[in-house]
Amino acid sequence: MTGRSESASSDDRARPDVAVIGAGPIGLAIAWRCAARGLRVVAHDPAPGSGASAVAAGMLAPVAEAYFGERQLTELLLASAARWPGFAAELAEATGTDIGYRTEGTLLVGLTRDDLAEARRLWAYQQGLGLPVTPLRPSELRDLEPALAPRVRGGALAPTDHQVDPRLLVPALRTAALRAGAVLVPRQVTRLSEVDARVTVVAAGCGAAALTGLPVRPVKGQILRLRAPDGVAPGFRHVIRGYADGEPVYLVPRPNGEVVLGATVEERSDTTVTAGAVQRLLRAGVDLLPELAEYDLVEAVAGLRPGTPDNAPILGPLPGRPDVLVATGHHRHGIVLTPVTADLIADLVCTGEPDPLLAPFRPDRFVGVAADRFVGVAAADRFVGAAADGEPETTMKGDLWS
Amino acid sequence: MTGRSESASSDDRARPDVAVIGAGPIGLAIAWRCAARGLRVVAHDPAPGSGASAVAAGMLAPVAEAYFGERQLTELLLASAARWPGFAAELAEATGTDIGYRTEGTLLVGLTRDDLAEARRLWAYQQGLGLPVTPLRPSELRDLEPALAPRVRGGALAPTDHQVDPRLLVPALRTAALRAGAVLVPRQVTRLSEVDARVTVVAAGCGAAALTGLPVRPVKGQILRLRAPDGVAPGFRHVIRGYADGEPVYLVPRPNGEVVLGATVEERSDTTVTAGAVQRLLRAGVDLLPELAEYDLVEAVAGLRPGTPDNAPILGPLPGRPDVLVATGHHRHGIVLTPVTADLIADLVCTGEPDPLLAPFRPDRFVGVAADRFVGVAAADRFVGAAADGEPETTMKGDLWS
Repeated sequence: MTGRSESASSDDRARPDVAVIGAGPIGLAIAWRCAARGLRVVAHDPAPGSGASAVAAGMLAPVAEAYFGERQLTELLLASAARWPGFAAELAEATGTDIGYRTEGTLLVGLTRDDLAEARRLWAYQQGLGLPVTPLRPSELRDLEPALAPRVRGGALAPTDHQVDPRLLVPALRTAALRAGAVLVPRQVTRLSEVDARVTVVAAGCGAAALTGLPVRPVKGQILRLRAPDGVAPGFRHVIRGYADGEPVYLVPRPNGEVVLGATVEERSDTTVTAGAVQRLLRAGVDLLPELAEYDLVEAVAGLRPGTPDNAPILGPLPGRPDVLVATGHHRHGIVLTPVTADLIADLVCTGEPDPLLAPFRPDRFVGVAADRFVGVAAADRFVGAAADGEPETTMKGDLWS
Repeated sequence: MTGRSESASSDDRARPDVAVIGAGPIGLAIAWRCAARGLRVVAHDPAPGSGASAVAAGMLAPVAEAYFGERQLTELLLASAARWPGFAAELAEATGTDIGYRTEGTLLVGLTRDDLAEARRLWAYQQGLGLPVTPLRPSELRDLEPALAPRVRGGALAPTDHQVDPRLLVPALRTAALRAGAVLVPRQVTRLSEVDARVTVVAAGCGAAALTGLPVRPVKGQILRLRAPDGVAPGFRHVIRGYADGEPVYLVPRPNGEVVLGATVEERSDTTVTAGAVQRLLRAGVDLLPELAEYDLVEAVAGLRPGTPDNAPILGPLPGRPDVLVATGHHRHGIVLTPVTADLIADLVCTGEPDPLLAPFRPDRFVGVAADRFVGVAAADRFVGAAADGEPETTMKGDLWS
């Protein structure tokens, strides 16, 4: 099989080709893709899918998420979104389960005149990139979603920004990975030396900081789940994103009546739900869609996104450890970036050749950044005297691509 | 012992003197008071303390709750509040536990000019009744509670309106009742004929409608529990009640950091938590006390208060069944009314003589009210053919007091 030597010793035969640390959507998709190529894969996670993905809304929104100054990230988002239809179809075929993949598109709205002015600046930027953002007349906006508040000043349609349900996606990926032959070990890996494989993939979200010393920091997000009364579907079909009195907010409707309303972006590492955040989210949501006031509030939770200094993911070999690949730092984009991350990391495992798409996201872009700028530095410090144990030295050097 | 015949047959000896249906604070306090007088008491409840009291804030606020047109209720509230210090002391002595009885008093506030105008009308009415409500200058208000929002237009002090923690009160009452010799049977009583005792006391909250046919209806209340960060006490000491942009709201601080923020009053019988209610409560709370925005939101729940057509409790013999006493319909006043209800119902059990305080609250005040005006009529209908089973006939007649 690809990637395995037929003449390997029995010891080699027992050794996995790939150890994946972290079984969220990123880790599970990598495990699936690698196992499907015939590699022996072991994924380690004490609680698969219990991290950021359990809280995520599941928007596949490269257009709405195309922000000023993040052009390379936008390209990666677009590349991954383009893979989503095929990825979803393959996953459905491999597992027979529904992952809530929906293609109704996204409405972008501004509640007040100021909100609309801010939104229009962004839409103009997105249109300047050639992205499909179509400003709508107020009558067109209401025709698309009559449930929007009459106060909403204006909007636009991003027809190619779709959605998936992360709480369906993770179990489907788990099933796909297991059916492809991957093994899932329910344990916490706290040091790279605890796993033994030809290649180790660190897909541990915020946990990557302690494992690698890379500057991955938790970015708290609080999010609500509402449910339409009487078990009916929500009174709107599109994902709705926008600004409401300066509050950025999104609403993701699901056919089962659930509406995900999110999300805060906070430089904190706790997962408490605060009164102020819930109030602001609810106010923004109800201001945009008054019928939400009658919905049940069924969940208020907080999760920690793996953020990086430049808001872009970290994808590629760990400096000084060509046998360790990193796939983390997806921040608010973990779900949309799952297909491209899984495919390109699996390619890299098999071929040793990184896809050019990955170039801007190499881990070594943070080498030379002052150690005290690293959120992960406290954890990384533990590795200073541990180089003999196979841990990375804090002075990073050389990698697979250099 | 009082209430027992020494010459009773062995059958009589086994028969309880009092069966209490419902072991919320009302039922438990009645059981305690009756058992303490030497009566054989059995209280029936599948889940003691799981009803309205589990959600209640625990304000002991006869002054702040003195509303236009409810003078007799106000007198009962005052009588019960006057019993609270002794009741709390006896309970502490009987159980050795803390029930969170606090006497800091209540601040009454109005956020906007309109809120203050509405509040002042009520304060003038309360002062007209001779109740202790002292309007405060803005500087006095801030001296008492510096954490109040600068926007708050004005306030008053009700120094005698205190608080207790219902989630501590119920276990304490349970302990007191058991130590006094009462027996607690964890079962649901669905018909009066299922219990056998000299006197049956229906203290089943909203469940009294189905048991008695009396017009007790559920009045939904949604309530939030917040917690000051880092486990410190809230930044305010008084109970704070008032109006915030027309929203009536209260905030009850506890020394352990908890703040109870409530409550809606809705003519509904579901216990779902809705987005709109949570948003309105949080907005009102944060508008009055901005620091609440930083508090953890730890619980959002709904409960059902036992309401009656005239908002007053139902206390006394069930028409046509002098052996059945009713103690329900306490609506928003169950906690403050616990001592007076328990004492006077225990007196009535022992002496057969109702205290004059109970006169306005006799169950027979609803006799003659058209059946279709009874919220409980659907349940009562089941009793029409069941008179032979010892159930009340729907044509009510005669009682202990007639």
